[in-house]
Amino acid sequence: MAFLGTSIIGYSSAKPIGNSFRGINPATNTELDELFYAATPNDVDQAASLAASAFKAYQKTSPAERAGFLRAIAQELELARPLFVARVPLETGLPEGRANGELGRTIGQLNMFANLVEAGHWVDARIDTALPDRAPAPKPDIRSMQVALGPVAVFGASNFPLAFSVAGGDTASALAAGCPVVCIAHHAHPGVSEIAGLAIQKAAKACHMPEGVFSLLQGTGQEVGVPLVSHPAIKAVGFTGSRFGGLAIAKIAAARKEPIPVYAEMSSVNPVVVLKGALAARSTAIAAGLVGSVTMGVGQFCTNPGLVFLPEGAAAEAFVAEFAGQMDASKGGVALHPEIAKAYKTASSEKSKNNNMTTVVGLEGTGPSSMAPWIFSVRAASLINDQSLTSEVFGPSTTLVTYANMDELIAVLNGLEGQLTGTIQYDAADLPLNEDLIGALQQKTGRLVMNSFPTGVEVCHSMVHGGPFPATSDGRTTSVGTGAIYRFTRAFCYQDMMQDALPDALKDGNPLGIWRAINGAMTQD
Amino acid sequence: MAFLGTSIIGYSSAKPIGNSFRGINPATNTELDELFYAATPNDVDQAASLAASAFKAYQKTSPAERAGFLRAIAQELELARPLFVARVPLETGLPEGRANGELGRTIGQLNMFANLVEAGHWVDARIDTALPDRAPAPKPDIRSMQVALGPVAVFGASNFPLAFSVAGGDTASALAAGCPVVCIAHHAHPGVSEIAGLAIQKAAKACHMPEGVFSLLQGTGQEVGVPLVSHPAIKAVGFTGSRFGGLAIAKIAAARKEPIPVYAEMSSVNPVVVLKGALAARSTAIAAGLVGSVTMGVGQFCTNPGLVFLPEGAAAEAFVAEFAGQMDASKGGVALHPEIAKAYKTASSEKSKNNNMTTVVGLEGTGPSSMAPWIFSVRAASLINDQSLTSEVFGPSTTLVTYANMDELIAVLNGLEGQLTGTIQYDAADLPLNEDLIGALQQKTGRLVMNSFPTGVEVCHSMVHGGPFPATSDGRTTSVGTGAIYRFTRAFCYQDMMQDALPDALKDGNPLGIWRAINGAMTQD
Repeated sequence: MAFLGTSIIGYSSAKPIGNSFRGINPATNTELDELFYAATPNDVDQAASLAASAFKAYQKTSPAERAGFLRAIAQELELARPLFVARVPLETGLPEGRANGELGRTIGQLNMFANLVEAGHWVDARIDTALPDRAPAPKPDIRSMQVALGPVAVFGASNFPLAFSVAGGDTASALAAGCPVVCIAHHAHPGVSEIAGLAIQKAAKACHMPEGVFSLLQGTGQEVGVPLVSHPAIKAVGFTGSRFGGLAIAKIAAARKEPIPVYAEMSSVNPVVVLKGALAARSTAIAAGLVGSVTMGVGQFCTNPGLVFLPEGAAAEAFVAEFAGQMDASKGGVALHPEIAKAYKTASSEKSKNNNMTTVVGLEGTGPSSMAPWIFSVRAASLINDQSLTSEVFGPSTTLVTYANMDELIAVLNGLEGQLTGTIQYDAADLPLNEDLIGALQQKTGRLVMNSFPTGVEVCHSMVHGGPFPATSDGRTTSVGTGAIYRFTRAFCYQDMMQDALPDALKDGNPLGIWRAINGAMTQD
Repeated sequence: MAFLGTSIIGYSSAKPIGNSFRGINPATNTELDELFYAATPNDVDQAASLAASAFKAYQKTSPAERAGFLRAIAQELELARPLFVARVPLETGLPEGRANGELGRTIGQLNMFANLVEAGHWVDARIDTALPDRAPAPKPDIRSMQVALGPVAVFGASNFPLAFSVAGGDTASALAAGCPVVCIAHHAHPGVSEIAGLAIQKAAKACHMPEGVFSLLQGTGQEVGVPLVSHPAIKAVGFTGSRFGGLAIAKIAAARKEPIPVYAEMSSVNPVVVLKGALAARSTAIAAGLVGSVTMGVGQFCTNPGLVFLPEGAAAEAFVAEFAGQMDASKGGVALHPEIAKAYKTASSEKSKNNNMTTVVGLEGTGPSSMAPWIFSVRAASLINDQSLTSEVFGPSTTLVTYANMDELIAVLNGLEGQLTGTIQYDAADLPLNEDLIGALQQKTGRLVMNSFPTGVEVCHSMVHGGPFPATSDGRTTSVGTGAIYRFTRAFCYQDMMQDALPDALKDGNPLGIWRAINGAMTQD
């Protein structure tokens, strides 16, 4: 496969003059042949400046134009499917099947946002009509809607080379909102990023989008991401990755002359609570489901269940034995990157050294970058005294926690940091559920899952893939589903604006035929 | 009038043991008789902890219960009207008429949020139904809505002792969202704050709200606000005041172990652009309107027009003369606080010393804390080189800026910091309006006003009283109107939740009869 190897700046390519680097095949721990060049400070400035100038026209594109652009990107990605399927495994160790599936999800997300933009009511159009004769002062005509924030910096994620990277959810939602995107390719998969970047560039050209509506910068977050986030043209940031990286970006964004919002999805251990009745009724099924959830994608999902709470007693002991028995080396696999495998080894070995922790399963992977299951068990009381036991181990690992009673369980949950998800496994005998248990999980999470597992994030209108800090840096929002668009918009209102200068969404005749709130009442008139 | 003089902690009062202070009558520069006691660190902790415990029950109150509570507060405020009308002038120098009018607005805001909560669709209920037979994986049932963030710290504003203070918009929107409120009384009007605080306490008791749903802390922002914002129980902050204060609070909130959102409304000079046709056709009317807008409330409004752009030439010169002629000492008045009068003197005198600035009107006020009009004029070209000339002078002051042509005007606007509002005065001869002019103002503001003036913020569904930094610390939101509720909520979703454990807003039968998005389609079914 031939690669440009350079950043994509609007409708051009950067010169190959920055620091050069190569992708690494984690399955062999060897560098891949193709050379890539990091963006220079000048490339960063050019991409950001082009995005600012593209913003003027792009924010005014009609719903049909913007939807057409999103669908064109989806089509270009589909055309590039063979390229992705060949390159994803080389750069990430993920199997072809995963590349195919994740590409499908990525395309689905783009089409979902195209449909959202076309339906149009996402703009939250509100019209309050004038009362010129009102005393003591006339009431003006006020109309508001959500408008685009401006150019967005999107950091490609390591663990989803497609769905949370160059053409992933952050990019799709920002483009849908009317914001140009400058993406920083994750340095671990520069080739996959380039394929996606060229697909977007091609779609942008074909749809006559203003140059700069999309650029792709190669290089590391530190080298390229820091100057991009600091650039005055950038108005918001989307990020999926480590807590360390997310917090560093948030700090830079807050220290700018004009601080900007950062949507960083960072770390989560996704507590799963198994209640007594559920354990009695479905122990084997829960164990099997948990094996699948913990080891899916070699445990490299942000919704990986890292803490599983079991009611202490013989049933829990049997569950631990059964679960451990299923967690053999075949459930592991190749990490996305040798560094991730290394970090996994360090974190799991550290956890195993804690006196309160019992290592139930501790397997060495075979071959380069391999990660095999590590399972720990601990009593809930220990977590109350030592929060470090609840920290994330990124990989196919989980900690089984036995609780003495509901009070102890709730106390531990109340002590947890913010999480993306909380899960309850219950059976009829557990009903009605303890309200404080539901309350504790709701307070700590963005999604409460019943009788299932947290992995598998449905892409739909109601999905909330977000949660209180440090699961995300802004726990008010979601990075998956149509709600993700509001991360990149702000409220704006017009007072006594002439009809022909109003956006279509706010015109009297409702030319878009969208749902609007007129004097507070929902109507399509 | 007899005052407690202490903080209100839930259903009790704090002990009078903190640092004591008195309000100051700015019209006489003398201390008022009544002694007030600042909250102690223990008071702060108690109020925040009570709020956290009240949150559990309060967030679950039904729309009817919450609306009833908001209406009860409104009624208690109305009953206290004579107390407000007596105390507001003493502590703020504002006339009785203003106290009456602002109380009406405060009551109106509470009733508006009661109506919003009752109508119910503000929660943005979304339901995506399950597809158990979908391949390759079944689709779960997902339902999302906006839920309350948790206890909110509200800082009373100096310039609106009622509408943006203890029972003002921040408190009303937080309570409507389901968040308990701990308010920090502005130290300049402790008595007015106490009257409002006791009204809320009384309403909370009468409505059987959980203790801690509201507390009022007396003292300064530094003494009481800093520990409150740092308290782990607090989950968001509302603030209206100086840039210095707002930025300090934002910094503390960002440095917490769990950072929290801060909604600080800070500074704005609210550019008003007068186009050639408008100046030719309505010079006298615009001058009169501008006099009213600049001097309303002795210029102490956040929407005060601090920059007025005029097309250079004879018409502008005539306008300046006419405007200056109307701005006599009678247009000034007593500042809210002696410190504000002092700051006004310093800022206006500093501006007058700049070589590029012409002082058109520079009046000394008579009597304590008085502020009289200061009007400056300057050429637009000077602003491009020296941004400091655009800084806010809090009081009855404005700067008239003459622009040579549209390009120069747009260049100056593009160089401005974020603003709450932008205004265009146009006439038929100016149509169609320059799109870049509209674009520049939209990009910098939260509200675009046509042929009117920025003061007078309509309280309604579509109002956006917010704007890019530093107008506010979070330019995505509004602090006035029903949209203000979303500052204190976050998205939350349930996956495969049992019907009877779902909130009413998400139940199959739609018992609240609200508008919901079911599989993306709006319906009341």
